[in-house]
Amino acid sequence: MDRRPIGVFDSGLGGLTVLKEINRYLPNEDTIYFGDTARVPYGPRSKETIIKYTFQAINFLKSKNVKAIVIACNTATARALVEANESYDIPIIGVIEAGARAAAKTTKNKKVGIIGTAGTINSKAYNKAIKSIDKKIQVIGKACPLFVPLVEEGWANKEISSTAAHMYLDSLIERGVDSLVLGCTHYPILKRTIGEAVGSDIKLINPAKETALDIKKKLEDNNLLNTSEKKGNCKYFVSDINEQFSKVAGEFLKRKITDLEKVEIHRY
Amino acid sequence: MDRRPIGVFDSGLGGLTVLKEINRYLPNEDTIYFGDTARVPYGPRSKETIIKYTFQAINFLKSKNVKAIVIACNTATARALVEANESYDIPIIGVIEAGARAAAKTTKNKKVGIIGTAGTINSKAYNKAIKSIDKKIQVIGKACPLFVPLVEEGWANKEISSTAAHMYLDSLIERGVDSLVLGCTHYPILKRTIGEAVGSDIKLINPAKETALDIKKKLEDNNLLNTSEKKGNCKYFVSDINEQFSKVAGEFLKRKITDLEKVEIHRY
Repeated sequence: MDRRPIGVFDSGLGGLTVLKEINRYLPNEDTIYFGDTARVPYGPRSKETIIKYTFQAINFLKSKNVKAIVIACNTATARALVEANESYDIPIIGVIEAGARAAAKTTKNKKVGIIGTAGTINSKAYNKAIKSIDKKIQVIGKACPLFVPLVEEGWANKEISSTAAHMYLDSLIERGVDSLVLGCTHYPILKRTIGEAVGSDIKLINPAKETALDIKKKLEDNNLLNTSEKKGNCKYFVSDINEQFSKVAGEFLKRKITDLEKVEIHRY
Repeated sequence: MDRRPIGVFDSGLGGLTVLKEINRYLPNEDTIYFGDTARVPYGPRSKETIIKYTFQAINFLKSKNVKAIVIACNTATARALVEANESYDIPIIGVIEAGARAAAKTTKNKKVGIIGTAGTINSKAYNKAIKSIDKKIQVIGKACPLFVPLVEEGWANKEISSTAAHMYLDSLIERGVDSLVLGCTHYPILKRTIGEAVGSDIKLINPAKETALDIKKKLEDNNLLNTSEKKGNCKYFVSDINEQFSKVAGEFLKRKITDLEKVEIHRY
């Protein structure tokens, strides 16, 4: 049994949807969240820069004595997960593998849709991960750039989001996908709207949930679970505090953030 | 008479709306456009970084022998225009002054609305510029984060943009503004949609047009106009070429870009 916290890292606030699932499936674990809000978004940055930023985040989380790290950011997973696992000896997992595995398991007709930011879709990271499991699966990606600002406006359940969902997703429905991966950490907030737009025949895959189940298994396999019966707590760190944080964090977690601290991340 | 080109600089592609107005009001002038697409957006970056990037852009444009420079970027104008004019001796103008002056001249009831990105609205740059002309004018800012991705999707004239316009602007109408500054270089693309949402009693102010008239006057005053009767040409430079460029550039300029080159901007 290991009482040390789990570290969760994202370029911004989207990773809070992953944190929420970790809290749901591992309710006794303490967690430390770090959002690199001063340097978000990572999407347009070079691989070299993203590796540097990711390593700084890992160094910071290690300084908080974490036992394992979840990279709750599609871009950082795609660009820096392999390098992180080569350079550090604690368990580090990303969001893409788990989502890809769930998609490969879910699809019946071997046609999977992936939605995400332009960066994630162009990187083809999910395509590669799914093809490496079953190369017969056809993977159709669709970038949905409006979804993140719609979520951040708090408009996820308004009519405008439903309109955007149809504009983006009708073409995926026509192409016959039977599973759809929510390949951006903001998208679980739109789950109901997206589900209504695509209909119940298309299964939605939430990598946040799959990632939580993944880290749970990793901790079990390595005897690192916290088996106390006390409910875990969560501490929040960001590299820049702005008014957006409490608004979006409230929307994502459905609870108030009381323990928020600023980190000088370039020092790590 | 001076045949050298005018340099136009933006963090990305939004400045093309300013270029278009310059080409309209100064059809005989050659122009050089530089979009810092590798480092867009400037919004979240520190003042120090924005000054550095702006100076690099100016150095690059000067290496192309420009006679004057337009900073066609609200963020770079707000953060770096003063410093640029202190450090360089060619005429350099930004987009905020001209828009502020037009707003102060247009408003009858002294209630002006400003719409822009969160960065521009939070900087209060337009508020300060308008108040410095007439401190009795009440300035009401409203950030509209959906507008840029709506334009970049090519959805500016679709129903969804009209919905977003109402969601953002109805509160400004209720507060009684009689003039509305399009305080982001992407927004002129939404002019028709925004105009329909606010109604014809509210005058829209396009700083791109005002800036073009400003640079025209500056060139006249300094005897720098190109008085040849040949139609000017435009060369386009960006720090990163992606597929987005031709799509958005086409949408903005309503003409094809044939002369596009990549610049290693960090060398300047």
